[in-house]
Amino acid sequence: MESQKLKQTQRIVLRLFMRGSHENIKRMITKLRPAESAELLAHIRRADQIRFLQLLFEVRMAAPTIRELPDELAKDLINEFKDAMIAEIVRRLSPDDAVDLLGYLPEDRQEQILVQLTEKERWTLERLRLYDEDTAGGRMTTEYIAFPQEITSAEALEELREKHDKSDLLYIYVVDEVNHLTGLLPWRNLVFASGDEKIKDLMVYDPVSIQPDTPQEDVAKLVSDFDLLAVPVVDEERKILGVVTFDDIMEVMEEEATEDMYHLAGLDTAERVFSPVSRSVRLRIPWLLINLLTALLAALTVALFKESISKFVALAVLMPIVANLGGNAGSQSLTVVVRGLALGELEFASRWKAILKEVSVGFCTGSINGLIMALIAYIWYGNLWLSLILFLAMIANMLLAGLFGAVVPLILKWADKDPALGSHILVTTVTDVGGFFIFLGLATVLMGYLNIPL
Amino acid sequence: MESQKLKQTQRIVLRLFMRGSHENIKRMITKLRPAESAELLAHIRRADQIRFLQLLFEVRMAAPTIRELPDELAKDLINEFKDAMIAEIVRRLSPDDAVDLLGYLPEDRQEQILVQLTEKERWTLERLRLYDEDTAGGRMTTEYIAFPQEITSAEALEELREKHDKSDLLYIYVVDEVNHLTGLLPWRNLVFASGDEKIKDLMVYDPVSIQPDTPQEDVAKLVSDFDLLAVPVVDEERKILGVVTFDDIMEVMEEEATEDMYHLAGLDTAERVFSPVSRSVRLRIPWLLINLLTALLAALTVALFKESISKFVALAVLMPIVANLGGNAGSQSLTVVVRGLALGELEFASRWKAILKEVSVGFCTGSINGLIMALIAYIWYGNLWLSLILFLAMIANMLLAGLFGAVVPLILKWADKDPALGSHILVTTVTDVGGFFIFLGLATVLMGYLNIPL
Repeated sequence: MESQKLKQTQRIVLRLFMRGSHENIKRMITKLRPAESAELLAHIRRADQIRFLQLLFEVRMAAPTIRELPDELAKDLINEFKDAMIAEIVRRLSPDDAVDLLGYLPEDRQEQILVQLTEKERWTLERLRLYDEDTAGGRMTTEYIAFPQEITSAEALEELREKHDKSDLLYIYVVDEVNHLTGLLPWRNLVFASGDEKIKDLMVYDPVSIQPDTPQEDVAKLVSDFDLLAVPVVDEERKILGVVTFDDIMEVMEEEATEDMYHLAGLDTAERVFSPVSRSVRLRIPWLLINLLTALLAALTVALFKESISKFVALAVLMPIVANLGGNAGSQSLTVVVRGLALGELEFASRWKAILKEVSVGFCTGSINGLIMALIAYIWYGNLWLSLILFLAMIANMLLAGLFGAVVPLILKWADKDPALGSHILVTTVTDVGGFFIFLGLATVLMGYLNIPL
Repeated sequence: MESQKLKQTQRIVLRLFMRGSHENIKRMITKLRPAESAELLAHIRRADQIRFLQLLFEVRMAAPTIRELPDELAKDLINEFKDAMIAEIVRRLSPDDAVDLLGYLPEDRQEQILVQLTEKERWTLERLRLYDEDTAGGRMTTEYIAFPQEITSAEALEELREKHDKSDLLYIYVVDEVNHLTGLLPWRNLVFASGDEKIKDLMVYDPVSIQPDTPQEDVAKLVSDFDLLAVPVVDEERKILGVVTFDDIMEVMEEEATEDMYHLAGLDTAERVFSPVSRSVRLRIPWLLINLLTALLAALTVALFKESISKFVALAVLMPIVANLGGNAGSQSLTVVVRGLALGELEFASRWKAILKEVSVGFCTGSINGLIMALIAYIWYGNLWLSLILFLAMIANMLLAGLFGAVVPLILKWADKDPALGSHILVTTVTDVGGFFIFLGLATVLMGYLNIPL
């Protein structure tokens, strides 16, 4: 197994490190794949990381390895190196990855490194830096193959042999005399052509394409729906600007899923599992303070009814149940709707259907849970009015949970915001405040009956 | 834009449907890509869906379209068709997709369809059905290209031209005389070879491979770490069994992210945003009942201290704040750890580091939130002892939240279970029960001081 092999290499490299035998390590690491080197790097001490990356650089493996590192580690490490070395690494990366790497550095260092590049290299990177990093433009690479449609298949093959020595050829694009995308050339049409056909007669017309400002999640959806390996990015005139490839798409899919999960839990997407404690605290505190505010709202709601509670303490015992079940039902509705929107299974046009469904589910689950809880409360307290109030409050609150669980992400989507962002806090505020208010409110109104044991 | 084009086609097709002009529709749909037909199918009425799929079948587009449909819709539709038609569709699908499609049918119908296939087709499918669908074996296709290592590049090219007319050639594998995987042949090495070299001299040795029982999430991690288009599945002797391709990997990544989000929210992965209400209720009720049980535990904890509450109602007002903040801090820790495990950023070996981090973060955020809340409570109630109790209870509960938020998913991982499954309910039970117990317990112990206003 891979991981067996990796662990073995890891042990060997660590041992060699301790003996300081760099030549042995160099011989060893040329055999590692970039992902393996990255894995190794992530598991050694900082001082060793820097030495190891230096060695990788010497055997020309630093650039592909950095690509595979977690963002935060890559950022920390790259800032330890000199401008000349970073410039060399930047030169070896594909332009989109180079721009990402530059993004790890402070603005002034970025400039210092850019001036060390040739004008052409600099121009490419400057252009890519213009695009928002979460769009097709920010994700695309400018390294792709596009042939003029008038050349012959023999000429195209010859050019492939001479110029494009990279093995990761996904698609060959075809452009007209002014660089407009006109087609896509399947490799077998090229390889098995007689040699003198023009490639415009071998190509597939009208390939799927996207604009540079297309959000990355839409690009991912398109690529995965069509099972594409790559998708070309074109401007308004269909001039080809770059290509977004499947490996970027896989990264986007992971990022978008992380973003949704993090936003639902009230986390900043910049946090990682091994972010330093101080950073994690700084990133989590704003969310927790908003949460404190909403918890305070719930407490104020309870305070409205403190007279009733002091007369009838069972209310304080049972009220968390109403709020808790509502909160969980709300999370369920919210998660189904947020995920449905992310996967494209729910579109804004079907909003009413989704809302109606969640409200209906809320009503049904509320009735069932309310009935069970009313029974339990009756056995516990022997008070039919209390059970009735609990039953009604649970139905009402779980109905509210379904309503807000569906409406909140849909409104955010409609406002062109992330449907997951802050929606969980909003929904649980509604179910906490609503749950307490309905339950304690009903109890207060019916207090006269509550105190007559049935 | 794509979606513009799609909407236009959709309108046209719908209009044609109403006029019943099948010939027009057929002409139209041959121009659609499978993903577009699938999109269209998802937006029309059931009766039209069946007619549309029938037409797709007649123009030989049913198989690729069904591949793109959401599982539930595919299942509903496929059950409407006759055995002969399904057998024909099965024949046109790649074996892994064919097995998935058969899985939509009841056991007895599967058998009826299998007998309509040739012995070879049946054997391939029967073999694939043996693997668990969430493993490499269940995900792999048996359609791949593998050449014997002793043939020449000219012979290989000739075979490619004659036999493999599919355009989705991702990798060419190389095997020895007994079908053991020995290498991978980059297409450019093949195309630009002189013709008489043996392909074993053109291939790359020792390609990454996996076993059929490798869980699908591990396959996805490997493929995305190494930026592969496909990965071969081999048995213990390195005999090649099949290939898992990038399009399956993208599906796996979506599925796994959905599973984690659903499990964190207490949802069954079988639910979809437009599952019928009755089905959603049935799937959600078990989770909500477990939740009711845990809420009851929290209520019993409160009941332990009903004397204290009736003496001092402020406790009932403030107790939800302690539980609520703890619950949210627990969700944060849990989500970071679950996602870290899913992305491979956290491994079981680093468990102590992760636990220590979450506990530290819990202590810090608990101190900050506790301090703020103590101040607010002091302004509100003017009782220093009450504020002190609140402060201590919030620190303790958010520390608990960090501890359990990290420990619960790690224990599940260690036990080879899904780290997200049920962990949210467990963690919030701890923070609810713990929060109430610590806050009300401290207040009860210090009740003598509480009633002396400072």
